[in-house]
Amino acid sequence: MVIVMTPTATPEDIEAIVGLVGAAGGEAFVSRGVSRTIIGLIGDVERFAALNLGGQRGVAEVMRVSTPYKLVSRENHPERSTVRVGGVPIGPETVTLIAGPCAVETPQQTLAAAEMAKAAGATLLRGGAFKPRTSPYAFQGLGEAGLRILADVREQTGLPIVTEVVDAHDVPLVASYADMLQVGTRNTQNFALLQAVGKAGKPVMLKRGMSGTIDEWLMSAEYIAQRGNLDIVLCERGIRTFETATRNTLDVSAVPVAQRLSHLPVIIDPSHSGGRRDLVLPLTRAALAVGADGVIIDVHPHPEQALCDGPQALVTEDLPALAQTMQTFSPLMNRTLVSQTLCQSARPPQSLV
Amino acid sequence: MVIVMTPTATPEDIEAIVGLVGAAGGEAFVSRGVSRTIIGLIGDVERFAALNLGGQRGVAEVMRVSTPYKLVSRENHPERSTVRVGGVPIGPETVTLIAGPCAVETPQQTLAAAEMAKAAGATLLRGGAFKPRTSPYAFQGLGEAGLRILADVREQTGLPIVTEVVDAHDVPLVASYADMLQVGTRNTQNFALLQAVGKAGKPVMLKRGMSGTIDEWLMSAEYIAQRGNLDIVLCERGIRTFETATRNTLDVSAVPVAQRLSHLPVIIDPSHSGGRRDLVLPLTRAALAVGADGVIIDVHPHPEQALCDGPQALVTEDLPALAQTMQTFSPLMNRTLVSQTLCQSARPPQSLV
Amino acid sequence: MVIVMTPTATPEDIEAIVGLVGAAGGEAFVSRGVSRTIIGLIGDVERFAALNLGGQRGVAEVMRVSTPYKLVSRENHPERSTVRVGGVPIGPETVTLIAGPCAVETPQQTLAAAEMAKAAGATLLRGGAFKPRTSPYAFQGLGEAGLRILADVREQTGLPIVTEVVDAHDVPLVASYADMLQVGTRNTQNFALLQAVGKAGKPVMLKRGMSGTIDEWLMSAEYIAQRGNLDIVLCERGIRTFETATRNTLDVSAVPVAQRLSHLPVIIDPSHSGGRRDLVLPLTRAALAVGADGVIIDVHPHPEQALCDGPQALVTEDLPALAQTMQTFSPLMNRTLVSQTLCQSARPPQSLV
Amino acid sequence: MVIVMTPTATPEDIEAIVGLVGAAGGEAFVSRGVSRTIIGLIGDVERFAALNLGGQRGVAEVMRVSTPYKLVSRENHPERSTVRVGGVPIGPETVTLIAGPCAVETPQQTLAAAEMAKAAGATLLRGGAFKPRTSPYAFQGLGEAGLRILADVREQTGLPIVTEVVDAHDVPLVASYADMLQVGTRNTQNFALLQAVGKAGKPVMLKRGMSGTIDEWLMSAEYIAQRGNLDIVLCERGIRTFETATRNTLDVSAVPVAQRLSHLPVIIDPSHSGGRRDLVLPLTRAALAVGADGVIIDVHPHPEQALCDGPQALVTEDLPALAQTMQTFSPLMNRTLVSQTLCQSARPPQSLV
Repeated sequence: MVIVMTPTATPEDIEAIVGLVGAAGGEAFVSRGVSRTIIGLIGDVERFAALNLGGQRGVAEVMRVSTPYKLVSRENHPERSTVRVGGVPIGPETVTLIAGPCAVETPQQTLAAAEMAKAAGATLLRGGAFKPRTSPYAFQGLGEAGLRILADVREQTGLPIVTEVVDAHDVPLVASYADMLQVGTRNTQNFALLQAVGKAGKPVMLKRGMSGTIDEWLMSAEYIAQRGNLDIVLCERGIRTFETATRNTLDVSAVPVAQRLSHLPVIIDPSHSGGRRDLVLPLTRAALAVGADGVIIDVHPHPEQALCDGPQALVTEDLPALAQTMQTFSPLMNRTLVSQTLCQSARPPQSLV
Repeated sequence: MVIVMTPTATPEDIEAIVGLVGAAGGEAFVSRGVSRTIIGLIGDVERFAALNLGGQRGVAEVMRVSTPYKLVSRENHPERSTVRVGGVPIGPETVTLIAGPCAVETPQQTLAAAEMAKAAGATLLRGGAFKPRTSPYAFQGLGEAGLRILADVREQTGLPIVTEVVDAHDVPLVASYADMLQVGTRNTQNFALLQAVGKAGKPVMLKRGMSGTIDEWLMSAEYIAQRGNLDIVLCERGIRTFETATRNTLDVSAVPVAQRLSHLPVIIDPSHSGGRRDLVLPLTRAALAVGADGVIIDVHPHPEQALCDGPQALVTEDLPALAQTMQTFSPLMNRTLVSQTLCQSARPPQSLV
Repeated sequence: MVIVMTPTATPEDIEAIVGLVGAAGGEAFVSRGVSRTIIGLIGDVERFAALNLGGQRGVAEVMRVSTPYKLVSRENHPERSTVRVGGVPIGPETVTLIAGPCAVETPQQTLAAAEMAKAAGATLLRGGAFKPRTSPYAFQGLGEAGLRILADVREQTGLPIVTEVVDAHDVPLVASYADMLQVGTRNTQNFALLQAVGKAGKPVMLKRGMSGTIDEWLMSAEYIAQRGNLDIVLCERGIRTFETATRNTLDVSAVPVAQRLSHLPVIIDPSHSGGRRDLVLPLTRAALAVGADGVIIDVHPHPEQALCDGPQALVTEDLPALAQTMQTFSPLMNRTLVSQTLCQSARPPQSLV
Repeated sequence: MVIVMTPTATPEDIEAIVGLVGAAGGEAFVSRGVSRTIIGLIGDVERFAALNLGGQRGVAEVMRVSTPYKLVSRENHPERSTVRVGGVPIGPETVTLIAGPCAVETPQQTLAAAEMAKAAGATLLRGGAFKPRTSPYAFQGLGEAGLRILADVREQTGLPIVTEVVDAHDVPLVASYADMLQVGTRNTQNFALLQAVGKAGKPVMLKRGMSGTIDEWLMSAEYIAQRGNLDIVLCERGIRTFETATRNTLDVSAVPVAQRLSHLPVIIDPSHSGGRRDLVLPLTRAALAVGADGVIIDVHPHPEQALCDGPQALVTEDLPALAQTMQTFSPLMNRTLVSQTLCQSARPPQSLV
């Protein structure tokens, strides 16, 4: 059984629930999120039912868990959600472009890539300081030094930062720099990490597992949500199949399927899906046309020198076409393309969920 | 070694080549196609090289086979091809809508579905008379009676017919009714069938194998081309993966990848990919946006009574949205949406390849 | 509805059934098999039920078709079957070794490979005269000339022949030479071919589709059975997955699963599964240990010159280890290793099904 | 560049290396393992080469990293390794049975399962206290309370414990109870966890990722090895494919392939591969026959009440058949079945690597 508190519930309201549950022989698991608190109950459901928890002050909803995911399910939350990252919305009304280098390498390279991103119309900057690499001998990222570079570049460009965290232990550190935490495809079932980002008070981008079903992906999102954080954006990035012409097989169908099952925004990563520069634009168009709420794209000033995933990064000459694609397809899907002007004029509001 | 004759080569020209090859101890395999003849040579390549075959009358090109596909490769034919089916073009300048029932069941149902197709803007009618069914106890199609129904409906609606053939033995029969022969996903490596449709003098739609790589697909097309038939349209229809939320996983990346490797048109079947009505429109949009040269879509007047694949057929209420999608996305991709008016005004020309 | 006639049913018995069904407004589809006739009924099941067909002379069983496969199902036939190929049994009491070259290339090569097979203890000779090749430019087999070589080698060695047929049209020709017809992995859903081999009067080895589920495989077997031929041996040969270290991924679990669902024998092809010589012996051991009723193995006197699949063929030095593996594992599984002596002493009996 | 120190290298020897590397402008990364220390160097390889590091005291080997895995590669270590877990060997000379409950639920259930394991001949006890579960609403394990139960049961039965760790943060805690740390299939690319277990001073069982290639698996092992821990046992547990008849598809070929590429022992988990009780024995036989160095099997006194994976657990009646399979197949593969007697008579030696 899960209790969702209202955003205005007080610590006393929460304590009251915990007390009631304890007195009924149960255990209450309190997760304080960005905008609200969620309390998981373990114990005798029948006894809990007798407590009339739904009637307590500060309680928004009491859910019995019967489907594998509940908090992220659209069944319980028919309106699709908008997640805000440093004031930039990702949701059903808009199309958001996130761009930047795969990995932060140097201040110069990161700034140049951020300027490229901005030129293409991006309103969020991606960039990895902690890189999960298949080989232990591959470049593993600059760590905290990379986070500092990202923060400097944010200062210089005004772009909020999306960056990956690979270790539950690093979550507070990364969250102290990042505007949005990314959980990568190799960690989609790293439940300790999911729980840690669920408690970090920052929006999360959750990539789909390389061989994860849509159901498993939503259950991973549920792990985050259960810790009180509903500011989750799902990101489809290609699945592993027998086909070797592309790095992964982009599963565009996953977007409408996930949007039907869950209220969370769903974006697409066309760079890691195809793994080839020449596929980024066609796959971006397909992403927008299928209804994705945004795309996240690798750009690099000098991809031939990139320490990670150079072959898929867009270069400067590609940017006008990318910008035009974003501008053309957004109105077609009855959406507004998120722009820096738009974000600055709007008052970066509280989380919308 | 493969010799492509010019469209105007005479039987005597062909005989002359065969004679030369035989005299050099080789064997010549003559394939007379719709618009031209292709001669495959088996024997000592060095001796053939000495024959100066490229200089013989009626010879358009002599190719050494080094890549796995040659005739369908874009390397040897940089211009992308347009295939014409009863006057309806499928190619790089246009977007073509093919629609109709999965299976021909009755004259009434087929006519009603054809009228639906037409209302949505389709210029070609799909419909199966021979159905390859996984279970021997499933409806296997009406056979020749189904072909006669299709011919009647063509008469009534003016829509040329695309229909499947599953047995090499039936190719002449099906070709005597059809405007385009379809080879289904279970037969993509049925080489006897590929060779038979290669000789049938009708355009061919070749679906990708359920677990076929793009390379294997193009090699299957090469089997058809080798028999003299280059009027081939490739059709991506979803591949088999671990994901079970959709019937198959639509691989949109296959469109730009195949178009880069081959000059043949590539279309998408969003109905069989997703296997769900609610996914047909989103996947159609993705198909057009990624650059497909057309789409093929199931429609049915009463899908709840359909003998085959009812759950994925569009119904009458879906047609306006389909029509509008086609009209909106075609100009966006700098293409003309093929319409009946367009086809009637144009003189149905000879094959363009 | 399907009627299985007894082996001793007369043409008059069959005619009587056809007449009854016709009089009831139905259609009867008669399939005369090697040992018995099967009649499929299309029409009103309720009216058929009223005919008391089970009580007619010559009728062994009347089955309502509810599960996707019926004739090959173990539910209706709890005893596992033994199929005999030229007197050589394949079934639950024995282990059978089939070996030979992937493709018949020359009389010398075929005889040498057959002698190798015999030396390793094989009692059936495999060898392809018609080869389904992904590329149209690859060696396609010698055709009928290859069948004649196989027949000569059978004469010289006493080994019955297993050979592939790839085109429904060729089935009578191939069946006139072969002791067992093989349907390859690319043709597992070539239903015309399945029906043709179902009528050919020869045992059939049905390979699993490269990406076919076990259920689909059994439904393909049902297509053969429906034409009156229950002498079917299933052959697992590896499925297509993301792993590229092996040519395919041998699915050993498919053996016990298929044996539980179907009464048909199940063997394994360790050569095409792994695609590597060094894996043939380990996978043969795994095959026998998991309960396969036999194995089919590529051997070649000069694999470096093989026109097809040389890298996986065993060479002469490998044969003692193969022979010993067969001899050691058979008793361990409470089975008799089929030997030429055993087959000659036994009177090659009628089909056992 | 990686430096492997001898087991007898002193702290001073290590300091000396670190000093040399630092003086050359590089960074030295010291990993102290159970039996030896490994130093990874980051910086200018050419300058390092000039230091003659191979000649320094305490240095066993200096490796340039060119292949994706080095420390676990057989190329650099042709002898296959034996890993010892609380005195129980897992390696090329032996076959080791590990058994126990999927999850620790109660002291009674754990003891009963351990007695079952012992009755079947197991010399190591498996059992999960921290369970990675796809759904956040599934039983997540008892945590440290479960570890205490395992420790008690070890006391009572003498069986060393293999147990999973899912969070890098928990490694010291789990390592303080466990004899062997298990990294599960969802964490095979959780690099923070791999590094943590690499430093924990306990042998590690590394499961193959659900959709991980053999190469990726060995690179994950390399992450552990790089931290100084070469006491790694690889465990194949089935991969994700399109087939749904089994929970996963056991890839038996992975055993000989991995044993050829790496010197590490490789075992098989037939319980999680098939996910069905009726497949455990056939898959165990296949595992031993293909050359696995051991198997790990779920047993449960009351699987119908199990909180995790009941359908695949063996029950008491299955144990004699399991014991007999182990006894029959071990000598057949020229191996000794590890027994408790064997382990007690031998002096539990230092790690063998």
